Amino acid sequence: MFEIKKRDGLARIGEFTTPSGTVETPAIMPVINPNFELISTEKLKEEFDIQVLITNSYIIYQSEELKEEALEEGIHSMLDFSGPIMTDSGTFQSHVYGDVVVEPEEILSFQKKIGSDISTILDEFTEPDETELDAEKKMEKTVQRAKKAKEEFAGKEGHTAFPIQGSVYPHLRERCGELMKELDGDFYPIGGVVPLMEDYKFSELVKVIVSSKKGLGAKGPVHLFGAGHPMIYSLAVLLGCDLFDSSSYAKYAKRGDLMYPEGTKNLSDLEHLGCECPVCTSHTTEELKDLSEDKREELLAEHNLWISRKEMEKVKQSIVEGTLWELVERRVRGHPELLKTLKVLDDRYEYLEKFEPRSRKRALFDTGSETYWRPAIKRIQDWIMSEYEPPADGPTILFEMDQDKKPYNRHLREELGSMEDHELNYLVETPIGPVPLEMDEIYPVAQSIFSSDKMPEKLLTRYKERKDIDNMIRWEGKKTLDSLSQPHQEGISFDEMKIKTTADYQFCKEAGKVLTDGTLEFVKNNKGRIKNVMLDGEHILSVRHYDGFFTLKKPGAQILWAKLSSPKMRIEVTDESAKFNSEGKNVFAKFVTEMSGELRPGDEAIVVTQDDEIAATARVFLTKEEVQAFKRGLAARTREGFET
Amino acid sequence: MFEIKKRDGLARIGEFTTPSGTVETPAIMPVINPNFELISTEKLKEEFDIQVLITNSYIIYQSEELKEEALEEGIHSMLDFSGPIMTDSGTFQSHVYGDVVVEPEEILSFQKKIGSDISTILDEFTEPDETELDAEKKMEKTVQRAKKAKEEFAGKEGHTAFPIQGSVYPHLRERCGELMKELDGDFYPIGGVVPLMEDYKFSELVKVIVSSKKGLGAKGPVHLFGAGHPMIYSLAVLLGCDLFDSSSYAKYAKRGDLMYPEGTKNLSDLEHLGCECPVCTSHTTEELKDLSEDKREELLAEHNLWISRKEMEKVKQSIVEGTLWELVERRVRGHPELLKTLKVLDDRYEYLEKFEPRSRKRALFDTGSETYWRPAIKRIQDWIMSEYEPPADGPTILFEMDQDKKPYNRHLREELGSMEDHELNYLVETPIGPVPLEMDEIYPVAQSIFSSDKMPEKLLTRYKERKDIDNMIRWEGKKTLDSLSQPHQEGISFDEMKIKTTADYQFCKEAGKVLTDGTLEFVKNNKGRIKNVMLDGEHILSVRHYDGFFTLKKPGAQILWAKLSSPKMRIEVTDESAKFNSEGKNVFAKFVTEMSGELRPGDEAIVVTQDDEIAATARVFLTKEEVQAFKRGLAARTREGFET
Repeated sequence: MFEIKKRDGLARIGEFTTPSGTVETPAIMPVINPNFELISTEKLKEEFDIQVLITNSYIIYQSEELKEEALEEGIHSMLDFSGPIMTDSGTFQSHVYGDVVVEPEEILSFQKKIGSDISTILDEFTEPDETELDAEKKMEKTVQRAKKAKEEFAGKEGHTAFPIQGSVYPHLRERCGELMKELDGDFYPIGGVVPLMEDYKFSELVKVIVSSKKGLGAKGPVHLFGAGHPMIYSLAVLLGCDLFDSSSYAKYAKRGDLMYPEGTKNLSDLEHLGCECPVCTSHTTEELKDLSEDKREELLAEHNLWISRKEMEKVKQSIVEGTLWELVERRVRGHPELLKTLKVLDDRYEYLEKFEPRSRKRALFDTGSETYWRPAIKRIQDWIMSEYEPPADGPTILFEMDQDKKPYNRHLREELGSMEDHELNYLVETPIGPVPLEMDEIYPVAQSIFSSDKMPEKLLTRYKERKDIDNMIRWEGKKTLDSLSQPHQEGISFDEMKIKTTADYQFCKEAGKVLTDGTLEFVKNNKGRIKNVMLDGEHILSVRHYDGFFTLKKPGAQILWAKLSSPKMRIEVTDESAKFNSEGKNVFAKFVTEMSGELRPGDEAIVVTQDDEIAATARVFLTKEEVQAFKRGLAARTREGFET
Repeated sequence: MFEIKKRDGLARIGEFTTPSGTVETPAIMPVINPNFELISTEKLKEEFDIQVLITNSYIIYQSEELKEEALEEGIHSMLDFSGPIMTDSGTFQSHVYGDVVVEPEEILSFQKKIGSDISTILDEFTEPDETELDAEKKMEKTVQRAKKAKEEFAGKEGHTAFPIQGSVYPHLRERCGELMKELDGDFYPIGGVVPLMEDYKFSELVKVIVSSKKGLGAKGPVHLFGAGHPMIYSLAVLLGCDLFDSSSYAKYAKRGDLMYPEGTKNLSDLEHLGCECPVCTSHTTEELKDLSEDKREELLAEHNLWISRKEMEKVKQSIVEGTLWELVERRVRGHPELLKTLKVLDDRYEYLEKFEPRSRKRALFDTGSETYWRPAIKRIQDWIMSEYEPPADGPTILFEMDQDKKPYNRHLREELGSMEDHELNYLVETPIGPVPLEMDEIYPVAQSIFSSDKMPEKLLTRYKERKDIDNMIRWEGKKTLDSLSQPHQEGISFDEMKIKTTADYQFCKEAGKVLTDGTLEFVKNNKGRIKNVMLDGEHILSVRHYDGFFTLKKPGAQILWAKLSSPKMRIEVTDESAKFNSEGKNVFAKFVTEMSGELRPGDEAIVVTQDDEIAATARVFLTKEEVQAFKRGLAARTREGFET
């Protein structure tokens, strides 16, 4: 059982339940070598707070002694660890040493017998240099084995991991994901990626992860098999990976390597440790160098584990804050091959956008030009270029940007005096491109800090082309108005523009029109900022102070529900659920029968029955795809029930 | 006494000697509040390995009790710390509370009396919003006080800190630096910068640091007064700051803030600590939140100190590795205002270049487009655009870049067959711009990894304009040669091109000509790479494997010495030194009487007597300006003495 607790885009903090307990994801699973205990499982649990381990059933199976011990007392007793234990099947050994000498059924049932919480089928490792045909055959073989395992162990205790294979061929990875999704498994490792990581082929790795995730839909947890370097944790979690296993902490230690989120350093190259972990704060480089080989290996493994564990905590904190993109953008600068992955993500915008919240609570910081590729920025750019329709018939006034004067409109309205009496469109230059002035208080236009003050000129050119604008005038103070040749005339008010455009962007294309069709009134704060919007005397919308978007009030929801055809903005639930939701209780995935595919996490939504009776307003937590995949957990937080 | 031990550009690992012991810089000096001991000085020394402290003499002076104690037993006994202690004078109190009630002479002599290792004159704090005139007056007053202090305490034990003031006016900061340099002090804080850091005005801070450093020349150590946030350490050290003091670790702790090299987080916002310091590995966020206020303050202060101390170690390690630019480029992405400083550094290229080594041992990694602003890249771009002269008269063949095929020339020579029989110039597209093929094995052309494979097209356009090239042909395989209309003719050999151009770039403009004027022969390794260069049978140059530059052999040095006029490539020393140097002993600053201002750290140089008699070849450690400033320590490492 896997449930999402918090999220930021595809990244998620989840709860994964196993027979031996629940794991909070994203999490790392240190690899335990059953032949050699470098750090005791007790220490792993007590000092490092490790929640879940992974060990290799094939190694155990191959040793008469270990095999007997495992069968007799079970894997938990053998490893002296009562929490969740995952077992691998020998597939990786086949990658390293060639074929393994065990039948797939045999090694799987062995894992089940020794009480593994997550057993892994013996899948076929697809190498990066595999031909497409070979990769496809192996992928299909893996799926067949998963099918067989499903038939045999469905309903029994313990999870079975169905690895996604397909080498570096995106369509094979996606297809494998789809086939595995159909099998309705409950644990999905992405396999065959270790060689990519070893060769720093991070762009390929990202393509593999995204294709696999696309195929799997929202199924999870997703485990990035063999990923043990903290330099990729943030990136992999950003793409929706939940679990990481690795023996790297120990392997790197053996060769004197210290891992850091920004890369690896060999002890022999170090004069200053520059690390605040318990190992590095209680030893100098010289002391570490002078230790016996065994002791040094142990301490470096501890360093590597501290760094790994704490990096994963940092990733989790970033999910909580909504700052994971920033963390990733900083981390990828540890190596140019990692930095390249941001371009790969840019190319996968359409997929990432589906999970992207329309706003975040904190300001967006740019970390360099690559920030402009973020879905949060591309979405609004894209909408302004493709969807936005300048509301007035008259010329467009272009304001020069000054980041210190954000939000621009409040400042400019003072300069401009009344903005009500001209048939004008207002556009402001911003680092993310030209933005209609009426959108400049919504995320991320106002809620961002950029290192550059320049607007890319080509974005303005594109805007003018798209909107077919030939009458654009640069604002040069009040005299600009006098220079307009046409007589001043009554036009749409700026406040109305603001409501209409924001609603169109936040809800859907027609929302702005229906929400402004009547007599508008505004409650403003003492700085002139709109707090509440009234239509024909009814409070339809409130403006959120932190992101400039609307909270949908009941009368507003009723208008949208009446005027927008289903499934727009809808989450459709069972009648039973609708009753609870209309009392203000939250919407759970289990009871959702249908929902709009346009809804994004954080969006305002209308909860309806299957007969499209309105029940509540709610804030989306899971997307349509996720609701269908999980069938459990919170789907949306109810704001107001319609029961009176 | 201050001596540079290791360096990377302006950044340096130094040794600063005080009456109470030697401090390795860069170092942080935690501020001790004499009224309130948050972390005991014993703990600071034992656990945090703190080498130097700073406390405020004005606070001590103002309290009858503390004053008496300090005068009686001395500051070291009072603080229970036998290592170096710096004292501040009350200037910062004047910034915070307005005027202070003590005479400048009085507070300085009080510091001397209580045995401060570094006493600070009562300088005039110049605020960022000060008018230029006021800032100038205050700056001059500060210089006057320094002059008076110099007169009174010159030759006596203990250092006196002469702060650099001048608000945000670069010429005032530079002028103040110059005046202080003339006073020949031995400790230079850059003052009045706390408000800039508090307001995140990091671009202004960088301008202030660079102007002050320019004025001071190479004088040091330089202390960035009040800089206590680890997010700016790497940047400040990159610009040549050596010491940092701050009460931030304690102040931040008081308000629940945890410092990180990437910024600050308040404990109340944290759900996951994501930090591996001893505090954060032994507590959860919940535990920290539940502590008593005092205990929490203490622990957060310890966290802040761990992070600060370890960040400084990381900075030092980066100096050792020559990777400080990369660390800085990563760190500045913690905040857009920090990121902006890279543009400010770009604008100060001419100053930074003076200290920039021509090569580094490790590959240059790009961290984003800002990397192209680094002096290491701009220098070679600049030289190719301005100084490089295509050696052949024929057309220029342009090769498309493929980063996997670096160095390009070896690969292309195979394709090209013999490169000896055409009057052709060869140019290759690289991410840093068009590079003559004969330069593609020198740093950083081959020794770099870039995240982009694209060459900015405008750089090629500029190159063609500068070199007046109208005959440029894209290489499309061997057929390209056949398409050349002119008959093949005997031209300059590619190997000769390589020697000539490398020598011109590495040594100076005429070096290439004089080092190839004769019969050239080459010793090559089995990959065809040149190892040794022989001219008329004499071994004049060896090629370094790691950066493609030359090590100057004695016969080569003799040619350069004979053909290049003084002071080119020269370090001029006293006769006594020349004798030692000719025996292979290193060159010390004390004995250097003159040297070429064109020599950069790491450059090959010729050691001569004041009569221009050749004594040795050497590798430069200090620049001319630094030799003059320090008058002590290693100036250059002798390679070969000329004594036979």
